[in-house]
Amino acid sequence: MSEHQHADETDDESAATSEKLVELAKRRGYFFQSSGAYGGVGGFYTFGPQGASLKGNVEDAWRDRFAVAEGNMEIDAPTIMPEPVFEASGHLDGFDDMLVECPDCGESHRADHVVEDNTEYEDAESLPIPEVEEVIAEHQLVCPNCSAGLAGQAVEAFNLMFSTNIGPGDSQPGYLRPETAQGIFVEFPRLKEYARNQLPFGVTQIGRAYRNEISPRRSIIRTREFTQAELEYFVDPETDEPDLESVEDVEVTLYPATEQNAESAAQRAAEGSSGDDEEPREDGDEIRTTIGEAVEEGIITSPWVAYFLGVAKPWYEAVGVDMDRFRFRQHLSGERAHYAADCWDAEALIDGNEESKDSEQRKSTESSSGYWIEMAGFAYRGDYDLSKHAEHSGDRFTVFKQYDEPKTVERATVDPDMSYLGPEFGGDAQAVVQQLEDLASRDRAAFDGDTVEIDLAGETHELPVEKTGFSVEEQTEAGEHIVPHVVEPSFGVDRLVYTVLHHAYREDEVDGEERTFLELDPEVAPTFVGVFPLQNDEGLEAQADEIVDELRAEGLSVTYDDSGNIGRRYRRQDEVGTPFCVTVDYETIEDEETTVTVRERDTTDQKRLAVEGLAETLAEIREGGKEFDEL
Amino acid sequence: MSEHQHADETDDESAATSEKLVELAKRRGYFFQSSGAYGGVGGFYTFGPQGASLKGNVEDAWRDRFAVAEGNMEIDAPTIMPEPVFEASGHLDGFDDMLVECPDCGESHRADHVVEDNTEYEDAESLPIPEVEEVIAEHQLVCPNCSAGLAGQAVEAFNLMFSTNIGPGDSQPGYLRPETAQGIFVEFPRLKEYARNQLPFGVTQIGRAYRNEISPRRSIIRTREFTQAELEYFVDPETDEPDLESVEDVEVTLYPATEQNAESAAQRAAEGSSGDDEEPREDGDEIRTTIGEAVEEGIITSPWVAYFLGVAKPWYEAVGVDMDRFRFRQHLSGERAHYAADCWDAEALIDGNEESKDSEQRKSTESSSGYWIEMAGFAYRGDYDLSKHAEHSGDRFTVFKQYDEPKTVERATVDPDMSYLGPEFGGDAQAVVQQLEDLASRDRAAFDGDTVEIDLAGETHELPVEKTGFSVEEQTEAGEHIVPHVVEPSFGVDRLVYTVLHHAYREDEVDGEERTFLELDPEVAPTFVGVFPLQNDEGLEAQADEIVDELRAEGLSVTYDDSGNIGRRYRRQDEVGTPFCVTVDYETIEDEETTVTVRERDTTDQKRLAVEGLAETLAEIREGGKEFDEL
Repeated sequence: MSEHQHADETDDESAATSEKLVELAKRRGYFFQSSGAYGGVGGFYTFGPQGASLKGNVEDAWRDRFAVAEGNMEIDAPTIMPEPVFEASGHLDGFDDMLVECPDCGESHRADHVVEDNTEYEDAESLPIPEVEEVIAEHQLVCPNCSAGLAGQAVEAFNLMFSTNIGPGDSQPGYLRPETAQGIFVEFPRLKEYARNQLPFGVTQIGRAYRNEISPRRSIIRTREFTQAELEYFVDPETDEPDLESVEDVEVTLYPATEQNAESAAQRAAEGSSGDDEEPREDGDEIRTTIGEAVEEGIITSPWVAYFLGVAKPWYEAVGVDMDRFRFRQHLSGERAHYAADCWDAEALIDGNEESKDSEQRKSTESSSGYWIEMAGFAYRGDYDLSKHAEHSGDRFTVFKQYDEPKTVERATVDPDMSYLGPEFGGDAQAVVQQLEDLASRDRAAFDGDTVEIDLAGETHELPVEKTGFSVEEQTEAGEHIVPHVVEPSFGVDRLVYTVLHHAYREDEVDGEERTFLELDPEVAPTFVGVFPLQNDEGLEAQADEIVDELRAEGLSVTYDDSGNIGRRYRRQDEVGTPFCVTVDYETIEDEETTVTVRERDTTDQKRLAVEGLAETLAEIREGGKEFDEL
Repeated sequence: MSEHQHADETDDESAATSEKLVELAKRRGYFFQSSGAYGGVGGFYTFGPQGASLKGNVEDAWRDRFAVAEGNMEIDAPTIMPEPVFEASGHLDGFDDMLVECPDCGESHRADHVVEDNTEYEDAESLPIPEVEEVIAEHQLVCPNCSAGLAGQAVEAFNLMFSTNIGPGDSQPGYLRPETAQGIFVEFPRLKEYARNQLPFGVTQIGRAYRNEISPRRSIIRTREFTQAELEYFVDPETDEPDLESVEDVEVTLYPATEQNAESAAQRAAEGSSGDDEEPREDGDEIRTTIGEAVEEGIITSPWVAYFLGVAKPWYEAVGVDMDRFRFRQHLSGERAHYAADCWDAEALIDGNEESKDSEQRKSTESSSGYWIEMAGFAYRGDYDLSKHAEHSGDRFTVFKQYDEPKTVERATVDPDMSYLGPEFGGDAQAVVQQLEDLASRDRAAFDGDTVEIDLAGETHELPVEKTGFSVEEQTEAGEHIVPHVVEPSFGVDRLVYTVLHHAYREDEVDGEERTFLELDPEVAPTFVGVFPLQNDEGLEAQADEIVDELRAEGLSVTYDDSGNIGRRYRRQDEVGTPFCVTVDYETIEDEETTVTVRERDTTDQKRLAVEGLAETLAEIREGGKEFDEL
């Protein structure tokens, strides 16, 4: 028995899915713009009861996979950090967006977005500021808000960190961290002790991060305050290798830099040769392959990055991302930080037409039929982060690496005769000693002759070697201090929540009425069962209460609802994405055997089931051990 | 068999427990001051792997009790909020500490602390600023840092909110929320819809809050960034009542305001009458009673507050707070916000000597033998919060309350004759209409005569009643819009984590060596089992790995450790507070039956147990279904 008539895929009207989702999210308690009573503030969203639960479930699933199962440590650091941290990390100087202010209406815009939206430039963010100003002037670009001309307006670098002051006065500036990662890097000297100085080890953190976006947009996709789940995995670059075997058969859709370049070239060719009789060169394509093959063929150059892509893909699938609207895209060389050897993003297609997934639209980063959003980045960052903090703090960001056997090494040293250097060089004597020490460790051969040359303020001086106390000694070393390299899988939680909801959004028709439902995976759905007494009746309510208790005792998340007619209650749970509803009616309390109606969300199929054993059965379905059909 | 010799309670050396705990917390990964590589910043702490886990367990336990079990909704709001929110809440104007700067060394101090620490004043915070300045001058108080005189230095009100700017420029100030509560209050108009407009309902939030303390102190007890778990419970003050029956038998230690006043009076009497032959009046005492009796005797005046105290006490006990070092203290009238009808704090004794728990030291808020810290506040806040936001935002912070039956009420209305008012009052005619409307709803009798008096700019005018169109009509009303009252249990998570660790701290002697261990409750302990291969041996390690997998499959949190000798590994887990350790030795892999040594943390008793069924047995112990002794 079923109230289900006909199911329509949402994709025909896909362009509007985001709008409908945002409306549903607000109505049903997933998310909404904060402080609405005061007109709202751009870029700040509140997760309502359903959203907080979904977000929490996603975070728990991430923790299980990337911390617990991988044996990594999780920490919890403050969101406010002092200025020196960001001097070292480079955020204070380099974490800028280009800002242009309208001379008429005063609205601020991202200059690179204005350029990209109205010219052929695709990556205006990588242009220097004067060039962006020129492009604005040349193309006579106007304010997106009031259409006043922007030519001649100064474009400024605007730092995206929220700043504040720690303690009274302004002597101690602090910043809200733009990423959770710095809270890990800066504590490396202590964290390595917790790891007993053994590489490799990983440290995770799930927490808030902040970016003072000039133009926040697309609801929770680009906000000013968001949640990250980051893993910093510290490895010995010479000896540590990932367990690639465990992920080599994972199938992935990759969009490598070479293919993206091919596509751009094709577009340029197509534009330049219109009316020409030359064939435009073939477009770049996404590649379907396995992690193992992608490493073998050199598509993914870092085995560590490949490993984490292989871990991430099935995880994304498990929490409910549609694998037909999912890919890993490699950063282009211009997009990548100079120190990052290889970097890939996990991307999800939003508002995209599934049927056109192999067509042009799928490849462009934005079009009327969908756009790709970044949900995570996987970067091999080398020793950049730890070296920078070592340099700026003077603390030791290294791990002592023991050799298999102690090594005997030759060390060249000097022990200069100061009774000679003093009279000879006066105040410069110490500088001469320093030079000799440097030279001995750098170029031992310089001491081969009778004299050695040093350089003082541009002038060359010669010294008798015998006055330098030069000697070569054998030393036994147990190991060396090395700076670990960092592999960083960095996940955006809010964007993932958005994608999971978007990919779960469905519309169909039930009993001649339009229905909206969220086909959420039981692992992340805020509620697993809704329990309804059919009518306001003490007997029904008491029985329903009892069932709620039994289901909760089995560890299921349950909601009780006795308001409105039963159809309305079903629709409400459909929109929330609750997989099952249990209705208690008069048959339940009057019949010999206590039975209830259990309704499945996606098919709306209903079955009459005994209350005895119901909790266990539903728990089994939740664990994937049984199907509703089989009951 | 036991390596355990003699157990000493820590209380003899209790004054030093905090210092030892802070050192252990750093060494073992519970918590430490952040950004140590850059010298650290006061008031910011990072939870290491053990601390983050303990904190997460405490948060989960809170969520289970105060959100899930109570049927409340949990939300997740931003930490940055715009200025109007804090104008309404009163934080912008009133959330200040008194700041005095030293003229010599420039250090900032809390003026009220300087006064309290060096005079007889106990609650200097409640004094007006000029009086604090006077006290400083009169007592010639000095800088606690450099001893320069502070007399004559201005005492300033310093707002404790961290401020920042949202978006480019400074046109939109924002603040880091000083409490999670505002993120709930400000969204009330939407949240009540999720609750289907039915009172009572509760909304919880666990998240960061920020206070820019002038002098952060005592490690994670008074920090600038911390985690709160708050419940805002919205009730109809006329009809809603808590389920007091369910908590009436809960035994509590209460320290009511009357007893605190009695104590202060006794102290004053003792000081004033030294050498006198009068008996000082008896001290105030803590009262041991039950929630039911405390309500009946009027000690706790708000039944709602009493209910949540009754829920909180066994919860605190379950997460590991020592009930001999726990009490509820009522706010004194001067300490309480003017709108709060009743307010109680949950307090824990830190560094206190358990044996002296009924003595003087236990009552003073700070002494060499311990001090009480506030872990939570329970306040009946009336309609203050919602009314303030309604007033400032103009939005509706009410719930429509349906009458049992529609009511017929009389409404007085006016319908003034404008052809009379216009010529008579000109530009003031509208103001007159407004006055007439106000008067009709306020004082119907004013229209009883032939004329009615109104007031315009201080002048009284008389109007013929017939020109006002005054009439009284009967209207049928289905209900009314009421402003719900708020009951607020507000928990500090960091302080609770600190208390749990502090109350679990133990020292004893094992095999003639001093031992430190944390007697953490299995529900919150970061790790439940440590698994060790006795030596570096492939066979032992493989067997240990297998056991780790089996224990994890049973849902137990496990740590694997193969570094250092076995005694050192036991001590490490003792300090982490891991209840059990499992050691795999040669007997394990050589004997017919596979057995391991299982060691219990508190007694250090060891038993030889079969690996088969071990995971189930330990899981049963964890759930409280079995004792280690019985095995």
